[in-house]
Amino acid sequence: MKLVRFGAPGAEKPGMIDHNGDLRDLSEEVADIAHEVLSDTSLDILRKLDPMSLPKVEGPVRFGPCVGGIGKFLCIGLNYSDHAAETGAAIPEHPILFHKALSAVVGPDDDVVMPRGSTHTDWEVELGVVIGTKGKYISEADALNHVAGYCIVNDVSERHFQTQLSGTWTKGKSCDTFGPTGPWLVTRDEVPDPQNLAMSLDVNGTRMQTGNTSTMIFTVAQCIAHLSELMTLYPGDVISTGTPPGVGMGMKPEPKYLKVGDVMELEIEGLGRQRQEVRQDA
Amino acid sequence: MKLVRFGAPGAEKPGMIDHNGDLRDLSEEVADIAHEVLSDTSLDILRKLDPMSLPKVEGPVRFGPCVGGIGKFLCIGLNYSDHAAETGAAIPEHPILFHKALSAVVGPDDDVVMPRGSTHTDWEVELGVVIGTKGKYISEADALNHVAGYCIVNDVSERHFQTQLSGTWTKGKSCDTFGPTGPWLVTRDEVPDPQNLAMSLDVNGTRMQTGNTSTMIFTVAQCIAHLSELMTLYPGDVISTGTPPGVGMGMKPEPKYLKVGDVMELEIEGLGRQRQEVRQDA
Repeated sequence: MKLVRFGAPGAEKPGMIDHNGDLRDLSEEVADIAHEVLSDTSLDILRKLDPMSLPKVEGPVRFGPCVGGIGKFLCIGLNYSDHAAETGAAIPEHPILFHKALSAVVGPDDDVVMPRGSTHTDWEVELGVVIGTKGKYISEADALNHVAGYCIVNDVSERHFQTQLSGTWTKGKSCDTFGPTGPWLVTRDEVPDPQNLAMSLDVNGTRMQTGNTSTMIFTVAQCIAHLSELMTLYPGDVISTGTPPGVGMGMKPEPKYLKVGDVMELEIEGLGRQRQEVRQDA
Repeated sequence: MKLVRFGAPGAEKPGMIDHNGDLRDLSEEVADIAHEVLSDTSLDILRKLDPMSLPKVEGPVRFGPCVGGIGKFLCIGLNYSDHAAETGAAIPEHPILFHKALSAVVGPDDDVVMPRGSTHTDWEVELGVVIGTKGKYISEADALNHVAGYCIVNDVSERHFQTQLSGTWTKGKSCDTFGPTGPWLVTRDEVPDPQNLAMSLDVNGTRMQTGNTSTMIFTVAQCIAHLSELMTLYPGDVISTGTPPGVGMGMKPEPKYLKVGDVMELEIEGLGRQRQEVRQDA
């Protein structure tokens, strides 16, 4: 299934994309795409619905983040061998973890707003993993059973804030609008191998990032297992699993950063597309 | 006012401590000590209530975290000049920021549970600041007007996870139960100077940390102003402002860490006391 949340920010309704690509309203069935609705049992119930029997939503809509009630937004850094090489960083021994503030999460096509003073805002297409079943000390073998589904994340990053303002990376990752998530939460039954998904990111129509989840250093299952040794993972927690090569910071002969009016377009095989325009806070 | 949340984990009710130190039930007045209830307007309404007219809660109760619906838990690192000296770290140029996972937040007297494999769990008494009014690009002069109130936080830290598992500090700060918060949310009108509060932490009755918020490198107002340049602060966001000297990591001649059965007792002037027993996951 392709589950979505649509409507005004903060007032999104749950929906589903049918086989024709049309949007169907799920709000008579579930309150939100969140919490226990992400469990295997609940998803099985939704899977048995006939999408054509659900109200069709006509006209253009805004999509919100494809999961609501996110409890934590965990990001893995430097998780692609080819991206680590690009940034000159050593291959980490364990998955590098940082948090993205939940207040940064927006819909897949919402504007990305650079904060005042930002001159080093960069893009990062990533595979997002949405937890469906609570767990702690999860084995690598069992890890994917804890996944509700997958989505696209743009881990927008202010490189100056990330590295020059003292301390950990989270400052450059947590600005408002720096977490476009969606459009679809594609349930895991439709993503048979999360380690073989083509991914790309264009800026103003020029391909900047080309990658495949096959070059991850730590697989989705390894990330889940490692994180669950540290803390309980809950339904609605999101893990963004790192970015492939082609970020602005790594451009030659010199880095390239976003400017007002730029358009980012992201795609991951089977997970749809995102499109954001760049603005800046006055 | 001293606002509290009491009852079973996840099902806490709002309450207030009256002038005799008795607990009064606020659940007929507000749904929770959270979100818009933290605004100046809402707090003024609560302040006009006669506590003696509210139902008295008898008998022992569990206190939960003193604020519900936390949106982000932001922690400032190395923010006391005397603690920075103790750890051998340089004085940072800006407030060091890391996130504590929201799933780590517990009540002030709940057990602290070391995860499997933890041998370096440490204590950190800190002044917690609870945001009451939304803001971005907040000036230092206006910053304290955005505060609903103050509380105690124990920023429990697994030093090996924090420094030896690759990447940012959050791994050692985000384990389940590593964020005791409360007992009281003391509204800011009762804390005339947040930069002059004595604080202490005992382990098994022995004084380990002695400090005063007067030795903060970045004041509460400066932390709020800086963070709000990066991201919007919302009602219910918590900022934990760093710890004074005396953490186990800094003990001489050798570091000292928590073990099963240890008891931590924390106090900040005017903000009450916390008490946690230490357990370990099997």
